[in-house]
Amino acid sequence: MRKRGHYDRVTIDAILDEGFLCHVGFVHEGVPVVIPTLYWREDDHVYLHGSAASRMLGSSIDNPICVTVTHLDGLVLARSAFHHSANYRSVVLFGKPEEVTDPGEREARMRVFMEQLIPGRWDTLRPVKPKELKATRLIGLRIDEASAKIRSGPPADDAADVTWPTWGGVLPLSIHAGAPQPDEHEKGKGRRAPLARQFQR
Amino acid sequence: MRKRGHYDRVTIDAILDEGFLCHVGFVHEGVPVVIPTLYWREDDHVYLHGSAASRMLGSSIDNPICVTVTHLDGLVLARSAFHHSANYRSVVLFGKPEEVTDPGEREARMRVFMEQLIPGRWDTLRPVKPKELKATRLIGLRIDEASAKIRSGPPADDAADVTWPTWGGVLPLSIHAGAPQPDEHEKGKGRRAPLARQFQR
Repeated sequence: MRKRGHYDRVTIDAILDEGFLCHVGFVHEGVPVVIPTLYWREDDHVYLHGSAASRMLGSSIDNPICVTVTHLDGLVLARSAFHHSANYRSVVLFGKPEEVTDPGEREARMRVFMEQLIPGRWDTLRPVKPKELKATRLIGLRIDEASAKIRSGPPADDAADVTWPTWGGVLPLSIHAGAPQPDEHEKGKGRRAPLARQFQR
Repeated sequence: MRKRGHYDRVTIDAILDEGFLCHVGFVHEGVPVVIPTLYWREDDHVYLHGSAASRMLGSSIDNPICVTVTHLDGLVLARSAFHHSANYRSVVLFGKPEEVTDPGEREARMRVFMEQLIPGRWDTLRPVKPKELKATRLIGLRIDEASAKIRSGPPADDAADVTWPTWGGVLPLSIHAGAPQPDEHEKGKGRRAPLARQFQR
């Protein structure tokens, strides 16, 4: 079996912890809406944040949402069109998120996000202002109803096709960090750009 | 304005044509479900395919779905936590998909997908069998209700923060194709792996 469902938290957490972009789905007037947004995991919760004015976050509180995280690992090139596929790891979470209403707790959760993304950066930043915390909405979804799906390995060609004269294998894909682009205020400062933990290879 | 909505087809099509992984949302018993899947665009339609037994594809026919495509272009590192962001280009499509019921048309659409992904490969493959076309479901969503959202450029720090002593700028991110991994049947054949159009840089 090359495509498999997984329900253990070790597999689920490893997939969640490798990313920071998810697609969140909610139902608005009977219609599904899927929006990309950043996320992070802390213990048994996945957190999403945004503007306090965000329709998506506001209307999702106590309503069912779906959070999906996908890592595309490669294109699987078989000898028949039918067996072409993609290698990937994904997690799908279902539940009703709760709002983090305490501003101090919101700041603590955001700090964890930054520490996971770029360890050490939080303490170098201009401190958070109360009005910024007020303008930030934070929701937490308990990891309760969760599953992972993984497809890996070479193409699954039919036995009769393996000698067919076309290349078969995997084209690996991954997210790559390019050269950091300092903004105009960095000119002449010679400071070194930090690298997100996920790209420190 | 660094974050903007776009509704013109040139912008929307350019974002769609650069990718092949989307997140499709549908409503199942009142609950939103978001699943990663491959897609392609041809003229005024976006197509999704999968197993004829796929619950997702089957139940989405004539029901409202949402197809979201996101390209993550970078992490935006500001001098305050509040102004950290991501650069991205995304498209969100809404509509009720129709099934492509004619097997010949299904084959023609799949051929277009392959030609867009890896030009010239289709004709090198073992020809499609009728039972494979029968086992493949294909749905098309008309590009009707569509919008794009783009965030690009440097951090939007508060004017008072630009001299704060921490690095500010963008960490560019992109999908990178690694060295092709031939499968065991390629041994000793010396054939060259094809490269997907999206990674021919």
